[in-house]
Amino acid sequence: MWDSLWVDLRAVTLADGEGMGLVEDAAIGVQGGQIAWVGPRARLPGPAASLAQHVHACGGNLVTPGLIDCHTHIVHGGNRSNEFAQLAEGMSYESIQAAGGGIRATVAATRRLDQEALVAASLPRARALVAEGVTTLEIKSGYGGDVATELRMLRAARQLGELLDVEVVTTLLALHALPERFAHDRAGYLELVIRELLPEAASAGLATAVDVFCEGIAFDVDECARVLEAAGALGLGVHVHADQLSPMGAAELAARCQALSADHLEYTGQSGISAMARQGTTAVLLPAAFLVTDETRKPPVAQLRAAGVPMAVATDCNPGSSPCISLTVAMALARTLFGLTAAEALGGVTREAARALGMLATRGTLEVGKRADFCLWQLDEPHEFGYWLGSLKPRQVVRGGRLRG
Amino acid sequence: MWDSLWVDLRAVTLADGEGMGLVEDAAIGVQGGQIAWVGPRARLPGPAASLAQHVHACGGNLVTPGLIDCHTHIVHGGNRSNEFAQLAEGMSYESIQAAGGGIRATVAATRRLDQEALVAASLPRARALVAEGVTTLEIKSGYGGDVATELRMLRAARQLGELLDVEVVTTLLALHALPERFAHDRAGYLELVIRELLPEAASAGLATAVDVFCEGIAFDVDECARVLEAAGALGLGVHVHADQLSPMGAAELAARCQALSADHLEYTGQSGISAMARQGTTAVLLPAAFLVTDETRKPPVAQLRAAGVPMAVATDCNPGSSPCISLTVAMALARTLFGLTAAEALGGVTREAARALGMLATRGTLEVGKRADFCLWQLDEPHEFGYWLGSLKPRQVVRGGRLRG
Repeated sequence: MWDSLWVDLRAVTLADGEGMGLVEDAAIGVQGGQIAWVGPRARLPGPAASLAQHVHACGGNLVTPGLIDCHTHIVHGGNRSNEFAQLAEGMSYESIQAAGGGIRATVAATRRLDQEALVAASLPRARALVAEGVTTLEIKSGYGGDVATELRMLRAARQLGELLDVEVVTTLLALHALPERFAHDRAGYLELVIRELLPEAASAGLATAVDVFCEGIAFDVDECARVLEAAGALGLGVHVHADQLSPMGAAELAARCQALSADHLEYTGQSGISAMARQGTTAVLLPAAFLVTDETRKPPVAQLRAAGVPMAVATDCNPGSSPCISLTVAMALARTLFGLTAAEALGGVTREAARALGMLATRGTLEVGKRADFCLWQLDEPHEFGYWLGSLKPRQVVRGGRLRG
Repeated sequence: MWDSLWVDLRAVTLADGEGMGLVEDAAIGVQGGQIAWVGPRARLPGPAASLAQHVHACGGNLVTPGLIDCHTHIVHGGNRSNEFAQLAEGMSYESIQAAGGGIRATVAATRRLDQEALVAASLPRARALVAEGVTTLEIKSGYGGDVATELRMLRAARQLGELLDVEVVTTLLALHALPERFAHDRAGYLELVIRELLPEAASAGLATAVDVFCEGIAFDVDECARVLEAAGALGLGVHVHADQLSPMGAAELAARCQALSADHLEYTGQSGISAMARQGTTAVLLPAAFLVTDETRKPPVAQLRAAGVPMAVATDCNPGSSPCISLTVAMALARTLFGLTAAEALGGVTREAARALGMLATRGTLEVGKRADFCLWQLDEPHEFGYWLGSLKPRQVVRGGRLRG
């Protein structure tokens, strides 16, 4: 007998690898926090009441996998709304940076906060995402500038997961901005990252993956490669912020390092796309960052699609280039700005987001054996995802088989 | 003695006509549903407890006027998410229209619904806006295609206001799309509008203003002028959908007809701007429609600003070109896409939106004598409005002096 059975629903399974995988008048059986059965209700192996302890009627709602935001920087101190205002009023990026703004401002604000204060500062952002049906949330470090603060960010991220009934996946963003005190000693910083930061984060079990910002204003391909190699040697997964502002060959790097994902990709060319396709690297598209930075060059969606590169979609929630606190808005932007189909946009925040995190075996679709993470939506059709521009709220969320309160 | 006194707040009054009008450590006294006193707490005419029956401490929150969405089409049947999907998959607008899609599809879906069903269909959209602190909501008709359905839409709009504790302002969108049965008799349709639709809506008290869609694919300047003249003769305010897709001279028309607002304005030139400035016509910017229609030409914000034309911001919530259910997202888009400052974006959904509706005397700022419509926000700084990309929810909303439940 199953723990619960969910009936009178339309299951958007995302299980066929491409389309919505819609099953009309479906049923979902849950046992031990996992999906034990999914399919058309008419094929249930017996009367509903005989199959499960609790039978939930879902009023004909659409049911999707729980949403997954696979790229965020939500843990940090302060915000940069003041710079946002200064930019609009004509101040240049350079003068803002010279006045202590930019990423340095966030590093400074983050370093001032203890773990409790970091959690408190980040909670409203995390809560906004969770309220939209996010059941798995990736959070990166990267505003620490030193080992202790980086680890504190990761601990704060974990704590958010406990507070909000969401599974938090932590990523050590090991190369993000060169700390000021290493301004004339890049090699010294690389040593610190490789010899201290990575091993400490790994041995404390605080991160499951490592990320690097491969960009002209950040770190070059060789620097990134060294760190990713060290991460791989420690058994950590890897991600790359790739080709966001300029063509760096970062997508090629990601493929070469067997990265789970290469993210942004505005300036990625055909050789990067081919390399990603060969290696099965997932592309993570971040349309809110594209919008906010007033970028005009779009990621090569048609070529990624043609090459069969999986495409995820995420908020990139961060205080500088993407103060985006809505994954459903990111989905809508992925459709309007990047031309994703509805199935791609919804698949991008479920199946492909799971793939980008290396977690497709346990989540991202409605299939037997996966975690029972799913959302009920009062919508008429699956292609309404990414159509409504705003925050969509599920009627109910089930995580690990339990109804979220 | 006042009914209530609100203290420990930072009042974003929008009262100085340009900036945020921020008053630190402010207090607001409310009497008979109106603001009886507003200013620095230190200048209160006595101890708080002696001044009002109820004293509310606001925990240092920012307080703004209640938000006003001054341009929506939220009342309609169906949605057009299917077309949205078809467009992304390469189908042309023409073939979608030929298959019964486009605005005709919405007219058909709207005509099928009785008033109760129209209210039920529109309720989730209205609820999403109200949840963001909207206290005054403009709703247009325009999908009726006949007199009875137009009036039914307006009644449904009024009913939404009663259900959701929001003041609904109804606008008769008298010229929107030519009904099919008048395809070869434009003059006949104009007669119907002027001789039946306008007088009936006016005598039933169902609309306070009339709007027209002045565009190559809709109605020309002369047709619009005739209808607006008739509206003026009935004592109704007027609005114009102006120059959205092509330069029509519609902003000039709006000024000539003493319209309260000219809306969209992507293709408005200097003569239209000058005419609006002379007449005091408010520009209503609709950035979500700009985004969704993939328009590249932006409204002339710098020139409007230089000419002193007031600028409001609205969702344009409609099923075809702007399925936007978030006024805070519209604010963020106004900043990122159109370069509005934070004060312009927030002023655009409060003071200027009130002005666009001809209601500035009663709302839109925190000033003595205005309605006590205001929102409490857990934000640190006023320039966070339009910085966060997503749905912002106020902690509390006061409407007409009463705390919304």
